[in-house]
Amino acid sequence: MASNGTNGQDRRSGFLEIYARLKSELLQDPAFDFTEDGRQWIERMLDYNVPGGKLNRGLSVVDSYKLLKGNEPSEEEFLLASALGWCIEWLQAYFLVLDDIMDSSHTRRGQPCWFRLPKVGMIAANDGILLRNHIPRILKRHFKGKAYYVDLLDLFNEVEFQTASGQMLDLITTHEGETDLSKYKLPVYNRIVQYKTAYYSFYLPVACALLMSGENLDNFIEVKNILIEMGTYFQVQDDYLDCFGDPEVIGKIGTDIEDFKCSWMVVQALERANENQMKVISENYGKADQTCTTRVKAVYKDLDLQGVFSEFERTSFEKLISSIEAQPSKAVQEVLKSFLAKIYKRQK
Amino acid sequence: MASNGTNGQDRRSGFLEIYARLKSELLQDPAFDFTEDGRQWIERMLDYNVPGGKLNRGLSVVDSYKLLKGNEPSEEEFLLASALGWCIEWLQAYFLVLDDIMDSSHTRRGQPCWFRLPKVGMIAANDGILLRNHIPRILKRHFKGKAYYVDLLDLFNEVEFQTASGQMLDLITTHEGETDLSKYKLPVYNRIVQYKTAYYSFYLPVACALLMSGENLDNFIEVKNILIEMGTYFQVQDDYLDCFGDPEVIGKIGTDIEDFKCSWMVVQALERANENQMKVISENYGKADQTCTTRVKAVYKDLDLQGVFSEFERTSFEKLISSIEAQPSKAVQEVLKSFLAKIYKRQK
Repeated sequence: MASNGTNGQDRRSGFLEIYARLKSELLQDPAFDFTEDGRQWIERMLDYNVPGGKLNRGLSVVDSYKLLKGNEPSEEEFLLASALGWCIEWLQAYFLVLDDIMDSSHTRRGQPCWFRLPKVGMIAANDGILLRNHIPRILKRHFKGKAYYVDLLDLFNEVEFQTASGQMLDLITTHEGETDLSKYKLPVYNRIVQYKTAYYSFYLPVACALLMSGENLDNFIEVKNILIEMGTYFQVQDDYLDCFGDPEVIGKIGTDIEDFKCSWMVVQALERANENQMKVISENYGKADQTCTTRVKAVYKDLDLQGVFSEFERTSFEKLISSIEAQPSKAVQEVLKSFLAKIYKRQK
Repeated sequence: MASNGTNGQDRRSGFLEIYARLKSELLQDPAFDFTEDGRQWIERMLDYNVPGGKLNRGLSVVDSYKLLKGNEPSEEEFLLASALGWCIEWLQAYFLVLDDIMDSSHTRRGQPCWFRLPKVGMIAANDGILLRNHIPRILKRHFKGKAYYVDLLDLFNEVEFQTASGQMLDLITTHEGETDLSKYKLPVYNRIVQYKTAYYSFYLPVACALLMSGENLDNFIEVKNILIEMGTYFQVQDDYLDCFGDPEVIGKIGTDIEDFKCSWMVVQALERANENQMKVISENYGKADQTCTTRVKAVYKDLDLQGVFSEFERTSFEKLISSIEAQPSKAVQEVLKSFLAKIYKRQK
């Protein structure tokens, strides 16, 4: 029996039981005639890449669905909400596997990136594609015949398109920024974050829960806007923590400065820097050298970006709360507030 | 006006007019807020990767639809059939862009592979993903609201899943074959070809035309089997031509032997070789050295693989014709025969 209790550990373990079930269904998919070697490869690839993260995106589908419904879901409903949650985790795994190849990254979630394993290498690109292809397989098996099946397909297609387009924008912008730092401006930053992160991390889980509740997404445009706003706030925190967070707490050492990232920090600094500070930034940004990074951070401190961030955090929170409270449905308010509560003033 | 005449050049140019239209729709897609740079990137990427092939797969949707309908399609029907044809060309472009990265290829269709362009590099992986994401955008714009819209989504999802799974099988098999050539056996070969090539190249165009004609694909299982069989025959020809075709005619120099490919040729050779010939193959297969390739080809000739291939071609053709003539619908017979006519005894 799947345990679908609400306390932290139970919540996670019930969700993980659904992962095991989905995986075994995929390994028996009649649309492909698996060899034993193929089955082993997929199983290893899934276990390595899908369930190892914080699972926030996936779990939030289940949480949101409960809040919208107003009482404990049935076992069947828990399965369906979890399956949608896992589809988002699969989507995330697909993006990460391919992003790591594109960025030549070394580690992910405390282990070597999948493509770095000697037996894997460039096969990882196809594994990323397979991860993506598992999503419609899961949707077909569990939702075909539901009135909202086609809406789910459209939703996942649209959000994936937006995420890949945001990734393109990020890649092009970073490319251009490397020769002309002045390309890093706030509207550019906001656009990248909205498409690359906010749609799939914030809007998608709630949209899944709304569809499962029988809602028409066209009636939730304002909810979408709030979630995009929240996703932007989340990414700004991420950029702040990359620079000023405690590596012990966030579990990694930030590399945005070395990597020439179009980070919220550098965007804010470029807006405020005097001629001399501008020179320090442009001479030291994007260099794989500890001294350079330290110089950039010193400028950030001189410009009091910590204060700028605190102020941003305060006004974002206030704005979000008042938009949320303008929502007509109490259940929807609760969903949005539970998202906000999870991220407000987070340290990791 | 789109010209939809049936003679060769007209047929191609009418189809290319639809490409221009689909491209411009994608560049105006309201689901993403394009920058001018982003738009330019996509346009260049599409023009480089999508329309430069033979367009056989795409054009065959239009041809098949005409045969099923029995008379000239209306302008609207021509647009829809062409849009589906272009979706298959987009799918093909997506696979090729990523395959070239995975195989470290150098040229494709007579020009450098997309990822080899200095400004592109690893951004190509995301471009591949974008190509894939354009397909549901095209489908949504032109087919949302049609009774068969959800069937189209399911069809493209299933075929992409099968192709990616076939690609996995090929990658794993080649990996294993590199240390143990005896893994290259006919059932393994047939399975790879069925999934990696036949579904999307042969079944998908006809399935698209059938859906547009209002048919239920569940009633066309035998048609699917015939097309898979034809796809296998096509790939065997490909493997034969890679080895014994005229480079002047096929437009490239084959590299299957150097690349350790699980080719139909080596599978047949391993089935027939004596101890000495086996030794020559295992010592020379997969080496980037002209002398080694020549030695392997000499074994192929000693084993009369040219004769084996001719015999395979003859029996495949006979079997296909008799399966086709067992089909109850004359229009379906015509569709299948037109596919067969295009590939039988082809020299390129």
